[in-house]
Amino acid sequence: MRDVYVVGAAQSDFGAFPDESYRSLFKTAFDGAVDAVDGEFERDRIDEAYVGTLGVGGRQLGLSGPAVTEHVGLDGTSCTRVENACAASGVALRQAVLAVRAGVADVALAGGVEVMTDMSGEQTRYWLGVSGETEWERMAGTTFSGVYAQMASAHMAEFGTTREQLSHVAVKNHGNGAKNPHAHLRFECSLEDAVAGPSVADPLNLYDCCPTSDGASAVIVASREAAEDLTDRPVRITGTGQASGRVGLFQRPTLTGIPATEQAARQAYDEADCGPEDIEFAEVHDCFSIAELLAYEDLGFCEKGEAGAYVERRATFPDGERPVNLSGGLKSKGHPIGATGTGQVVEVFKQLRGEAGDRQVDGLSRGLTHNVGGSGGSVVVHVYEGGWA
Amino acid sequence: MRDVYVVGAAQSDFGAFPDESYRSLFKTAFDGAVDAVDGEFERDRIDEAYVGTLGVGGRQLGLSGPAVTEHVGLDGTSCTRVENACAASGVALRQAVLAVRAGVADVALAGGVEVMTDMSGEQTRYWLGVSGETEWERMAGTTFSGVYAQMASAHMAEFGTTREQLSHVAVKNHGNGAKNPHAHLRFECSLEDAVAGPSVADPLNLYDCCPTSDGASAVIVASREAAEDLTDRPVRITGTGQASGRVGLFQRPTLTGIPATEQAARQAYDEADCGPEDIEFAEVHDCFSIAELLAYEDLGFCEKGEAGAYVERRATFPDGERPVNLSGGLKSKGHPIGATGTGQVVEVFKQLRGEAGDRQVDGLSRGLTHNVGGSGGSVVVHVYEGGWA
Repeated sequence: MRDVYVVGAAQSDFGAFPDESYRSLFKTAFDGAVDAVDGEFERDRIDEAYVGTLGVGGRQLGLSGPAVTEHVGLDGTSCTRVENACAASGVALRQAVLAVRAGVADVALAGGVEVMTDMSGEQTRYWLGVSGETEWERMAGTTFSGVYAQMASAHMAEFGTTREQLSHVAVKNHGNGAKNPHAHLRFECSLEDAVAGPSVADPLNLYDCCPTSDGASAVIVASREAAEDLTDRPVRITGTGQASGRVGLFQRPTLTGIPATEQAARQAYDEADCGPEDIEFAEVHDCFSIAELLAYEDLGFCEKGEAGAYVERRATFPDGERPVNLSGGLKSKGHPIGATGTGQVVEVFKQLRGEAGDRQVDGLSRGLTHNVGGSGGSVVVHVYEGGWA
Repeated sequence: MRDVYVVGAAQSDFGAFPDESYRSLFKTAFDGAVDAVDGEFERDRIDEAYVGTLGVGGRQLGLSGPAVTEHVGLDGTSCTRVENACAASGVALRQAVLAVRAGVADVALAGGVEVMTDMSGEQTRYWLGVSGETEWERMAGTTFSGVYAQMASAHMAEFGTTREQLSHVAVKNHGNGAKNPHAHLRFECSLEDAVAGPSVADPLNLYDCCPTSDGASAVIVASREAAEDLTDRPVRITGTGQASGRVGLFQRPTLTGIPATEQAARQAYDEADCGPEDIEFAEVHDCFSIAELLAYEDLGFCEKGEAGAYVERRATFPDGERPVNLSGGLKSKGHPIGATGTGQVVEVFKQLRGEAGDRQVDGLSRGLTHNVGGSGGSVVVHVYEGGWA
C-alpha cells in the first residue's frame, strides 16, 4: 500500500460573504494550500481532484467540481464531485487517498466549498433536509435540529447526561474558535450563556447548534516519493475508514450512538495500526453539541454513556488529556457543508506542524478527523501522524 | 497495479415509470447485477459502493448514495455519491476501479439512478441546465440542445457534415435500440423520418435528441482473486481515463471537438496498452447525434472532420467495421442521467460474454465506454477485454 501524505492544506475564512462566489472561495482555499507546500509547486503536478459540495442553485454552480477547479487553473485535470451530505469533503479526501494508493495520481487535490448564506430559510431547510431521510423525516417536517434533539433526549434519559454537559461543548468550542482567525463565530461564551440560549429543538438551544456558513477548504496529498520533493514537515495519513448507516434515525438500532462512526473508526484504526487510546487530538463533527458527545463514545475516546462527564472534567479542552476541536469545530469555526471535511484536515495539519498559532497544543504527534453526513447515514474517519513512515 | 474485472452488470428498463421510485429502480438493477454473477454471491462481499446521480427533489432522495444502497441490503457498506452531471456513473465506475486497485475493496459496486419523468419541463431544464456552465450559458437561457446545436452548426460549416449524416446516427441507434428489451424508445426510424423531425434547436431536430428517462444500472467489479471465485467469463477493465474540460463551450478552444474526450481516451488507451485501432466496438455518449460524431473523432475512430462520412458508410452499424451503440445508445435506449454511464457497461459486458441476444455481434474481444458530463466539462473512458489477463 502506497503511503499518502498531506503536503498542503488551507481554508478560506468561514462566515457570511455576500461578495464572494463559489469559485472565489475555492480559489482562496486552493491558493492557501499551494502556499502551504514547502517546496516548489506547479499546479499541473495535480493528477486528480475531488471536490465535495452539497447544494445546487443560487451561487452554487452546476458541474461544480470542474467548475471550481477550472477557476484555479486545473481545467484539464480529472475532477470528481462527491456528495455525501455534510461528509462531502471528508469523502473527497478519502477518494484522493485511494487515487494515490491506486497509482493513478502522485499528487491529488481534495477540497470542498459551500455558499449557504444567500439562501432563504426555506431553501436552507430544504438543502439540509435532503441530506437526511426524505420520506419519513423531511416530508414529515423534521429538521436536523429535531433529529439531533431526539438523540440528545435519549442520551439524557439513558445515561443521565445533563444540560450543563451539553453546554460544556459549546463553551470549549467557542473558546477555541475565538482564537481561530478563520472562524465564523469568533467569540467566547460562558457556561451560563450556553445553558440559557433560546430553544431551537428541545433540549437543544442556540448554543448547541452550529451556524450556517460560506466557505471553502483544500488539501493537497501526495505519494511518499512526491512528498519528499514537496515538504520537510510531512503529515502522513495512516488510516482511512468510511461506512454508511441507515439514513433515517428511526431505522437505526440506537438513538444514542452512530453505528457508522464505530465502523468507520474501526477501519481507520486497523489501517493505522492503532486504537483510540493512541489518538492525542481530534477534529470531530459537532454540528450539534450532542454530536460531539456521541463522537467521543463512538470513536472510543471514553466509555459508552460517559461522554457528558468526559467533557465536564475538561478531558477534551485544550489543556485536557485529548483536545477535541481545537479549531473551534463546526460550532464556532462554522459549517459550510461541503467545506467542513477538508476544513478539519487543515487544523490537524497545522497542529502536527506546530503552525496553529494561539491554538497550538505542543507535542502532538497523532490526530484524527471525523466527518458525518446526515444524522449518521455516512461517516468518514482519517488518522494522521507527523513525520515520515 | 491490481487487475479489475466486471463480474456482474445489469440495468432496469429505461423509460417513464410513474409507479417506480429511486430505490425500486436501483434495486432492479442491483438484483440483476447480482444475478449476472456466475458464482455464489453474498452481497456482504461488497466492500465499497459508488452511486452516480444528478438530481435532488421530487422522487430523488437526499443522501442518495446510502439511501439507495441501504434499500438493497448494503446499509453498513461505505457508499459514496458522485455527480459529474451526465458522467455521474461513469465516474462511479472509475472510483470503484480505483478502490479495488488501492486495495480497500476486493469487490466494489458502481451504479447510477435517475428519476426524471416526474419533473415539470421547467424543473427538467433546470436540472439539466445546472450541468452546464451556469453564469454565461444557463442564466443567459441556453439549453443543452442549444449548446450541442452550436457544435453541430460548426461541424457542418467546417467539415461539410450534412443533415443526412447526423440522421444516420438516429437511424442506426433506433435500429439497435428496437432490439433491446430495456430501451426506452423501441422503434426503428427511417432516414426520411429522421431528417424530417420537428426542429428542437436548429440544426438539431427531435431525432437528433435523446429522451428524458427514468432508470438505473449497476456493475459489480472485483480483483483478480475475487473474480476467479465469481465468474468463468471475466470481463477485464484494462484502462480507465478521466479528464475535465472548460465547463462552458464558449471557453474552449474548439466547437468541433471535446478536448476532454481526447485526454481521457489517451489515458485509458495508455493504461490498456492499445490504441483506437484496437477498439472493436464502443458505447459512446450520444445525447445528441452530433455528440456521437464528435466521439468518433475525439476517440480516434476516424480522422478529424470525417465522422459524417464514417457513419454514412455504415462503419459503426452492427454490420460495420466498428459497431457503436449496439444498445441503442442514449438516443434510443434512453438517458436517465445518473444511470447512463454504468448502463453503457452493461452492453459491453453482455457483448463480450455473448449474451446480447438479438443485438449480439459475434467475435468481439475489446470494447470501450465513453461518458460525457455537461457539454464536455467532464469525460470518462474505460477499455474492456474479454478473458483473464
